[in-house]
Amino acid sequence: MPEFLKLVSPQSAAERFKQHLPVFQPQSELIPTAEAVGRVTAEAVRAGEPSPAFSRSTVDGYAVRAADVYGASDGLPAYLELAGEVPMGGAPAFAIKAGQAAVIYTGGMLPEGADAVVMLEYSQETRANEVELFRPVAVGENVVKRGEDVAENQVVVPAGQRLRPAEIGGLMALGITHVRVNRQPRLGILSSGDEVVPPDQPALPGQVRDCNTYSLAALVRQEGGLPATYPIIPDRVEAMSAAVARALAENDGVIITAGSSASTRDLTAEVIQAQGQPGVLVHGISIKPGKPTILAVVNGKPVIGLPGNPVSTLVIAELFVRPMVAYLAGVKQKNWTPEVSAELTVNVPSQAGREDWIPVRLIEAGSGWKAEPVFFKSSLIFNLAQADGMVKCDLDATGLEAGQQVSVRLLN
Amino acid sequence: MPEFLKLVSPQSAAERFKQHLPVFQPQSELIPTAEAVGRVTAEAVRAGEPSPAFSRSTVDGYAVRAADVYGASDGLPAYLELAGEVPMGGAPAFAIKAGQAAVIYTGGMLPEGADAVVMLEYSQETRANEVELFRPVAVGENVVKRGEDVAENQVVVPAGQRLRPAEIGGLMALGITHVRVNRQPRLGILSSGDEVVPPDQPALPGQVRDCNTYSLAALVRQEGGLPATYPIIPDRVEAMSAAVARALAENDGVIITAGSSASTRDLTAEVIQAQGQPGVLVHGISIKPGKPTILAVVNGKPVIGLPGNPVSTLVIAELFVRPMVAYLAGVKQKNWTPEVSAELTVNVPSQAGREDWIPVRLIEAGSGWKAEPVFFKSSLIFNLAQADGMVKCDLDATGLEAGQQVSVRLLN
Repeated sequence: MPEFLKLVSPQSAAERFKQHLPVFQPQSELIPTAEAVGRVTAEAVRAGEPSPAFSRSTVDGYAVRAADVYGASDGLPAYLELAGEVPMGGAPAFAIKAGQAAVIYTGGMLPEGADAVVMLEYSQETRANEVELFRPVAVGENVVKRGEDVAENQVVVPAGQRLRPAEIGGLMALGITHVRVNRQPRLGILSSGDEVVPPDQPALPGQVRDCNTYSLAALVRQEGGLPATYPIIPDRVEAMSAAVARALAENDGVIITAGSSASTRDLTAEVIQAQGQPGVLVHGISIKPGKPTILAVVNGKPVIGLPGNPVSTLVIAELFVRPMVAYLAGVKQKNWTPEVSAELTVNVPSQAGREDWIPVRLIEAGSGWKAEPVFFKSSLIFNLAQADGMVKCDLDATGLEAGQQVSVRLLN
Repeated sequence: MPEFLKLVSPQSAAERFKQHLPVFQPQSELIPTAEAVGRVTAEAVRAGEPSPAFSRSTVDGYAVRAADVYGASDGLPAYLELAGEVPMGGAPAFAIKAGQAAVIYTGGMLPEGADAVVMLEYSQETRANEVELFRPVAVGENVVKRGEDVAENQVVVPAGQRLRPAEIGGLMALGITHVRVNRQPRLGILSSGDEVVPPDQPALPGQVRDCNTYSLAALVRQEGGLPATYPIIPDRVEAMSAAVARALAENDGVIITAGSSASTRDLTAEVIQAQGQPGVLVHGISIKPGKPTILAVVNGKPVIGLPGNPVSTLVIAELFVRPMVAYLAGVKQKNWTPEVSAELTVNVPSQAGREDWIPVRLIEAGSGWKAEPVFFKSSLIFNLAQADGMVKCDLDATGLEAGQQVSVRLLN
């Protein structure tokens, strides 16, 4: 049994957690590509055909053999015979022979024999069936070649990628109307505490309504997970053990928010530890808010224990739950954190040896932003609702200074 | 009828568009708060009760009258009579009189008479019904007061705010289990082009499959809109007029991607202009890719005409369609763009007088990121799928330099 609050740094905590997570192979399902935005590919997707499927023009103009307009200029145009007009959406019924040109529009299929396109603005049709061209073109100029975007059988989307609008469009362009994606991971969300009641009930004196279950479920949904919620657990070992065992059996991962007192937080660690191997990996992180966080792996499934305070819960959820859901979703991409750069409005003191996350409000300041720290207590959730994002004060720093440019991590 | 491509700057284009958009009042609906993440409040939400509903302890320890521990120290502890233990989830059945203390846990309800809490670590229970306390506390210390987070009737979420996990949790804490949100805006998406065929059909020579409809629908969905798609429109005035009129009637806004040739793009502008007032506001933006973009308002509804090229379509959708959907969703919040800071790997030339958006791939480099430009042609969608984000080269700049720190706007 790990002891209470052997603090480890946030980075060590994340690494230890990651090391113990088993290679997770989510189940997959075949779904319509048109509905797949945000879903994660279960396997590499290959092109069944080259794209474009034919060489085509990127401009409006004349399809030619480049050799026929070699050296053409305003003073010395090339005179070419018109072989016809390329129909949009069809193959030209003619080929371009030496000395010939054809009217072609952007996206039109290059006729056989042609190897480049002269733009419309460098042309003049003065006589029937003839065009004057005033500019030379290189072979391939103003043309997209067959297979230039994608070769046949090329991997167009790797496995483990979250599909964005660009991939959705690309797959549809290739006629890939269905795509195999990972099933969305199920995350069991448990709240405990003798003082906690469901939100649809009146809160009697001494009682508080459950908010963590719902803020966490919303966050899990945002990350592409399916939250499964459970009845509130009373602060007794047996009740919590049964609830955690059930949630572990029914889900790919579990998130537990502890009752608010220190003793019930210990209870959470004890219960998780008893569920299986390797058990609790981290109990206590040198971070504020969120020090009493528990990171565990039980029989191959990640379990995160969060402090009961709603603000700590959400801050730690941003830092540890979001990446866990992405992991369970099978995301294998690089991972970055979008931020907004802003000027800090006041000095913020911090304790060295502890990573501080300071909720801030973003305020427009000319073309940029100012970041104004929001006063908060961990137990007051609307303090956090007033924040647009949060700013990190590093483990070894003793504070941030007014006027300093900081990176604001948005609370989405 | 506006002339073709009177280029305006991206900023002027956005401002002109915004000025002509009417005050939009979306319809609203009452939905469960638990399902409201990402939705936009239709009205200000007020607290029906104060939060917390009672003063409570933020630590494990002893509820006291601060006056009774005045000057207490290790050498000179205060000896207080134990009046009882505060039950979790209930009101204490006793009050604290002068000279008394009560055991209290984090989140426990402060007994009447008590005005502060001494932390457990500064205490010792040596005799039955008595506790020694070694530290003084100020009135209100380690206590969250009734109404400290939210006063009764206070606005807790303003109208026009997109609900995040923090707001969802906060509303549930107040027992607000249903919330009035704006209906999701419907966006009609039209693609035109004689060469364009649906993705589930084989593409014959000269034909290309429709990808813009699906990449745009995905993007609209990401922004909280409901995309409505329509059959592909042939490049004829009557067909396009009928399709645009229908889409305008059935939706809150319309997005049209033109056929690829310059003449069909003109057709789009002409058709939009004929639909109503004020009509086409911008036709041509000094931006690359995406120059032939059309911004219009027709009888109070926004219409955006996008170039047919899939890359231009998506870049302009990031810059103009996303904000339009947010506008129609009734979002009234401040608006920032999350970015990742990265070091540019190579020089990027640009033409002054044109805003360039350069797709880049993000590459891990130690603790930071490098941004590597992705070679692209506007017509090749998988070029864009290789990009993680894009970098702006300002209107008046002639390029960006290798080694320069740039802000990468992510392609989500």
